[in-house]
Amino acid sequence: MNPSSSPVRLVIVGGVAAGASAAARARRLSESAAITLVERGPDVSFANCGLPYFIGGEIKSRDALAVQTPATLKALLALDVRTSTEVTAIDRAARHVTLRDLASGTTSSLPYDKLLLAPGAVPLRPPLPGIDDPRVFTLRSLGDMDRIKAAAATAQRIAVIGAGFIGLEMAEQFVHLAKQVTLVELTPQLLPPLDEPMTHLLADELRKRHVELVLGDSVAAFEPGAALTCRLASGRAVEADLVILSIGVRPDTTLARAAGLDLGARGHIRVNAYMQTSDPDIYAAGDAIETEDFVTGDPAAVPLGGPANRQGRLAADHIFRPSEAKPYPGALGTAIVRAFDVAAGLTGWTEKRLRAAGRAYRTVTVNDNHHAGYFPGAKPILLKLLWAPDTGRVLGAQCTGLAGVDKRLDVLATAITGGLTIDDLAQLELSYAPPFGAAKDIVNLAGFTACNTRDGLVTPVDALPDDPAVQILDVRPPPLVAAYPLPRAGAINIPLGALRARLGELDRTRPVVTVCALGKTAYFAARILAQNGFAVSALTGGIRAHFDPRSPAKLPTP
Amino acid sequence: MNPSSSPVRLVIVGGVAAGASAAARARRLSESAAITLVERGPDVSFANCGLPYFIGGEIKSRDALAVQTPATLKALLALDVRTSTEVTAIDRAARHVTLRDLASGTTSSLPYDKLLLAPGAVPLRPPLPGIDDPRVFTLRSLGDMDRIKAAAATAQRIAVIGAGFIGLEMAEQFVHLAKQVTLVELTPQLLPPLDEPMTHLLADELRKRHVELVLGDSVAAFEPGAALTCRLASGRAVEADLVILSIGVRPDTTLARAAGLDLGARGHIRVNAYMQTSDPDIYAAGDAIETEDFVTGDPAAVPLGGPANRQGRLAADHIFRPSEAKPYPGALGTAIVRAFDVAAGLTGWTEKRLRAAGRAYRTVTVNDNHHAGYFPGAKPILLKLLWAPDTGRVLGAQCTGLAGVDKRLDVLATAITGGLTIDDLAQLELSYAPPFGAAKDIVNLAGFTACNTRDGLVTPVDALPDDPAVQILDVRPPPLVAAYPLPRAGAINIPLGALRARLGELDRTRPVVTVCALGKTAYFAARILAQNGFAVSALTGGIRAHFDPRSPAKLPTP
Repeated sequence: MNPSSSPVRLVIVGGVAAGASAAARARRLSESAAITLVERGPDVSFANCGLPYFIGGEIKSRDALAVQTPATLKALLALDVRTSTEVTAIDRAARHVTLRDLASGTTSSLPYDKLLLAPGAVPLRPPLPGIDDPRVFTLRSLGDMDRIKAAAATAQRIAVIGAGFIGLEMAEQFVHLAKQVTLVELTPQLLPPLDEPMTHLLADELRKRHVELVLGDSVAAFEPGAALTCRLASGRAVEADLVILSIGVRPDTTLARAAGLDLGARGHIRVNAYMQTSDPDIYAAGDAIETEDFVTGDPAAVPLGGPANRQGRLAADHIFRPSEAKPYPGALGTAIVRAFDVAAGLTGWTEKRLRAAGRAYRTVTVNDNHHAGYFPGAKPILLKLLWAPDTGRVLGAQCTGLAGVDKRLDVLATAITGGLTIDDLAQLELSYAPPFGAAKDIVNLAGFTACNTRDGLVTPVDALPDDPAVQILDVRPPPLVAAYPLPRAGAINIPLGALRARLGELDRTRPVVTVCALGKTAYFAARILAQNGFAVSALTGGIRAHFDPRSPAKLPTP
Repeated sequence: MNPSSSPVRLVIVGGVAAGASAAARARRLSESAAITLVERGPDVSFANCGLPYFIGGEIKSRDALAVQTPATLKALLALDVRTSTEVTAIDRAARHVTLRDLASGTTSSLPYDKLLLAPGAVPLRPPLPGIDDPRVFTLRSLGDMDRIKAAAATAQRIAVIGAGFIGLEMAEQFVHLAKQVTLVELTPQLLPPLDEPMTHLLADELRKRHVELVLGDSVAAFEPGAALTCRLASGRAVEADLVILSIGVRPDTTLARAAGLDLGARGHIRVNAYMQTSDPDIYAAGDAIETEDFVTGDPAAVPLGGPANRQGRLAADHIFRPSEAKPYPGALGTAIVRAFDVAAGLTGWTEKRLRAAGRAYRTVTVNDNHHAGYFPGAKPILLKLLWAPDTGRVLGAQCTGLAGVDKRLDVLATAITGGLTIDDLAQLELSYAPPFGAAKDIVNLAGFTACNTRDGLVTPVDALPDDPAVQILDVRPPPLVAAYPLPRAGAINIPLGALRARLGELDRTRPVVTVCALGKTAYFAARILAQNGFAVSALTGGIRAHFDPRSPAKLPTP
């Protein structure tokens, strides 16, 4: 169909992350290709991850979000850019697409040798009563952003529905604008991809910033009036002048479906490791596709900007250099969000997903500072690690804290990619100078703790037992216990330094659970007790991981 | 010698990083062991990496540096701590050491089943004329720190000799104290472990902060007077009220040598992967030992706090659980330093070491921002990557910049540990939200660029050619060229967007080197030229990497 003498005709549907990346890479690989970029919206290659920050005023310049314009793409990449143009059909046999100019309504036909679908995803808008009220917004495009920013100028009460990544970013930005924000989330936690205990610090931070959290509830209807009333499933009413619906996205696969391309179980476009759909001349990349999970090989859809960019680039590689393109390694689902001073994120598998999938795993949670504690400015972070019991390989990690969260997630994403085990983490040689790290980084500490668990040196528990036969031993200094009591009566308090001398105060015939602020001292105490014949386990992650995300390890010096 | 019924007698020589870590781990593994920690100095387990920051006042509390005291070690770990006590001899046949109490001068004998040597390293003090002047200091202990801090109170002119990690930290801290600082370095660059171009930003930053840099020179003599004159090899005189000698350390192996333990070629104590010396009952860890390089298996000595801590822990593991201890993986030499707003560091092999060792390598240098450029606060970083041509495996990396340097070093240290290739880096799924990263992180970018180089899509050069037959093509916008001219006359300026239309201005019979601010646009231009039949190469890392570490990618918007 395409004799090697004539230039390749590449048509790309969608001009944002995956589409624009593919077009740029394609042009680097072929000066002669005829590359047409078709985008339904008026904008191409804009920074969609930046939209909340322009609404909140943290990004001042709208131009900063326009990474490229149709004009710059044409000048730099010699692309034929068609904005405000929709591809309405694919004729796979004839290899052409039907274009419709959205302004004029005129249609035309465009032939292709290779076609790349990068249509992205669209925000979910469930058919709730009142959903079409003009005060209910979703955020996906520069146009959405402009409309929300305009509406926010006169709105005071904001309801953000859905506490995922975008919901949290929007809640933060509306607080920056001094709005009164209510955040409604269906599940009983913020940031549903994370395991629940890893979201406590986020929740605490949002409450400190006066965001009202409504967890475990959802919108049943929007009731118009002077204010828009969000009627929740619980019956509760949340009054709002403006509603952001951020409950997720669905892949935009109308075109692929109509063309008869294979779709996955959840409706995404299925691709192979070179981004080819079931039609080898049609590629797909970005939020609309389903790839494989890096760890398990299961189908995985990760609608995020980073993967979209690299998938688009890879598709162009395979189109123009099929024998040299490297397969997509699969998705880790690495993601992070900032809410005020707190960051939280994950890479790989979580405990809830592992449990739901019935996969074997073990886990530890550790606390530390983001750099040497003796250096000014050390901030607490909390790291949860999951690994495979048979091989010790890292399966996933979650991190939250006030600094250095992105670094640990990136180290652990790299560790998963390299097939590293908990033993490797224990010995990982990370950069250390007091302003940047610690002689034993929290990643090393997670490795140590995981190995100790694997080797039976400690038995971790992730909750205080209800069984009154179990002795709860709080090994913190008594003044700290007095200032920050356990949320449970009946614990015995013996500080670590006195434990060897006071073992007689414990009943050797009854099991013990040791508790401290961060989890480390409880481990130390558990080692003493285990070697003295006690049946002992230790609360992993300490009080901070389970009860109070800001619980201090020691009292401030007066 | 040690029937399993009687407790192990463990003697540890040296109570700082490796020794204290070993003692702590040993106690967790054995409540019954008799553990004696012998330390020549008055302090144990102090944060030696923090010493410069207390001198400079950035760390306010001296107590913060005392991680543990003899009293807390005794209370928490039931150790027998002997400070101000020297081990003067090891009787390997009888398995005892001779102790000398430094205060009283009395000697005694202490039997051991297992002995751990963690003597550390001592600062080099070459026998130069005047070296014993009391104004010449080295920094290793809390006592050194106190003496320097006291002397600095009345000193105004400070000479720091040696621009390695400690020299840079001391120079920075003395500037914080408003001293007049001269930094003298034997090699022609700061931070000699790095490749020279990766130190330009550091040098620029120090000069901005009014540190006088004297590179490629060394002290020949100290001439006493009202001021101490540092007479340099060049003949130049540097007047100082206080001199810090930070030209390196040597392993403290007097004891090991006298005991007949095997030493390496550079005088370090040789150990196996479990930290055992040539006497299997004597272990060694920390700055005094030689392990293996992670990448090549060559002998490697890395006198840094992180490895010391983990080696001490590993030695204790092997003493108490020989069948479960995991071998030391080898050293990467990951290190980082902060000097004012700039950080710089490395992991694995550098170009200069690879070249000196005659090992095959390829390299690229890339510029980017530490997070999405459209998000406020984006800071430039520069990353140099080295990889093996045959396998594509990462051999080493260096990074410098104003933020996010530690993160990239840690990701690349983890990548080396996992055996990742440049293809893996291209697809690495790192955390991205605008405040933390970019859809294509600089680590991805380094992977892309390395793969492009490997695949022959671009031929990088790391200097502008002197050959007048080569056309130098500057593809920056003309106003930027006017504001930040190339340090070389005769370049042709055609901005990238106009290049396709203006190819006729170039001579197709002569080679071209493309140049831009950061290296990326030069690559884009090289692709256009290569596909149009030109013999073209591109300056890797751009003007910023080679000529001006603060060269902007665009003019500030007025």
